[in-house]
Amino acid sequence: MKSHRKILTVNIPERMAFLNITPKVAEALRESGIREGLCLVNAMHITASVFINDDESGLHTDYKRWLERLAPFDPTPSGYAHNRTGEDNGDAHHKRQIMGREVVVAVTDGQLDFGPWEQIFYGEFDGRRPKKIMIKFIGE
Amino acid sequence: MKSHRKILTVNIPERMAFLNITPKVAEALRESGIREGLCLVNAMHITASVFINDDESGLHTDYKRWLERLAPFDPTPSGYAHNRTGEDNGDAHHKRQIMGREVVVAVTDGQLDFGPWEQIFYGEFDGRRPKKIMIKFIGE
Amino acid sequence: MKSHRKILTVNIPERMAFLNITPKVAEALRESGIREGLCLVNAMHITASVFINDDESGLHTDYKRWLERLAPFDPTPSGYAHNRTGEDNGDAHHKRQIMGREVVVAVTDGQLDFGPWEQIFYGEFDGRRPKKIMIKFIGE
Repeated sequence: MKSHRKILTVNIPERMAFLNITPKVAEALRESGIREGLCLVNAMHITASVFINDDESGLHTDYKRWLERLAPFDPTPSGYAHNRTGEDNGDAHHKRQIMGREVVVAVTDGQLDFGPWEQIFYGEFDGRRPKKIMIKFIGE
Repeated sequence: MKSHRKILTVNIPERMAFLNITPKVAEALRESGIREGLCLVNAMHITASVFINDDESGLHTDYKRWLERLAPFDPTPSGYAHNRTGEDNGDAHHKRQIMGREVVVAVTDGQLDFGPWEQIFYGEFDGRRPKKIMIKFIGE
Repeated sequence: MKSHRKILTVNIPERMAFLNITPKVAEALRESGIREGLCLVNAMHITASVFINDDESGLHTDYKRWLERLAPFDPTPSGYAHNRTGEDNGDAHHKRQIMGREVVVAVTDGQLDFGPWEQIFYGEFDGRRPKKIMIKFIGE
């Protein structure tokens, strides 16, 4: 069994944004030399997500509006008890739960084994500082 | 290490429906010959989900009503910016994020290692055409 | 390839609560002897979640309030068709979908390969009885 680990660091200038990291994951797969196995990609921070969906800007606009409706930004401690700690990102911890922490992707014949429109995104909900993303492969 | 890949194709006649695919996944596991490992099952389309829950029709009725409340069908571009592309399935990309893309299940002693009520479902949110589901095992 | 399986049993006295199970997962990893691989942790019951977020009590208060807003407890069959079965936990099957069934964590150098604040939680939405959690490692 082989394994390969790679950490990406991103620094998103907005509070909330989505970044297509598929090319970076594909590059890490080539480095790994793995032909058959599984690929885990996860946000290492708890106010961010990794998810798979469409690379379409209208959809990303929709996601932002929808997440803001489900878990609105509110820096006050009455909005989110979490903000009693001095943080203002209570909403981001909720948005991340909707979009998920991680994806697991099959590796087949040395490729990310995707459907026709699958792309891997990093979802940032409390940006403007460096954040890390884990890529881990196991296989042969 | 062994691996095994199988693609299921489904064509759901409704826009939204849930299909129990547990017997298909168990069959793929038998074909694989794997006794210990992990099983990934994911929707290969981005308006569909794979999730684990109860095979109970009342619950599925509840899920449909709830998802419709959280992300209502609206074919217009004012409802979902994604629909500016000519698509009418903006809602389906949102419903899929709630229910998730994939499940990972332990394989132990050649069986899907489930709790008492766990069943694997394909969740369709934009049906009436063929869609693919990935099953990938790794193990020994 | 090595694998290791461990079942945790919990009995949460409240209907809804979050329990940090990170030390138990780390202990299972030490028992496994695995240095490189993947770790799956999943709820074996369908009214419970395993998720990764912050060990901060204000946030947990926020999550409970938010989940209650998204999927309110209602024991009646008019609230949830699932409750026609005689169950009263229709809400719990919905809360679990928001928070997720499982997490997959990288294992690197014999450690759970976490970001700075990542902790693994069991999320209970229909407690007051014994429930099981699966931990499965594969690797070397």
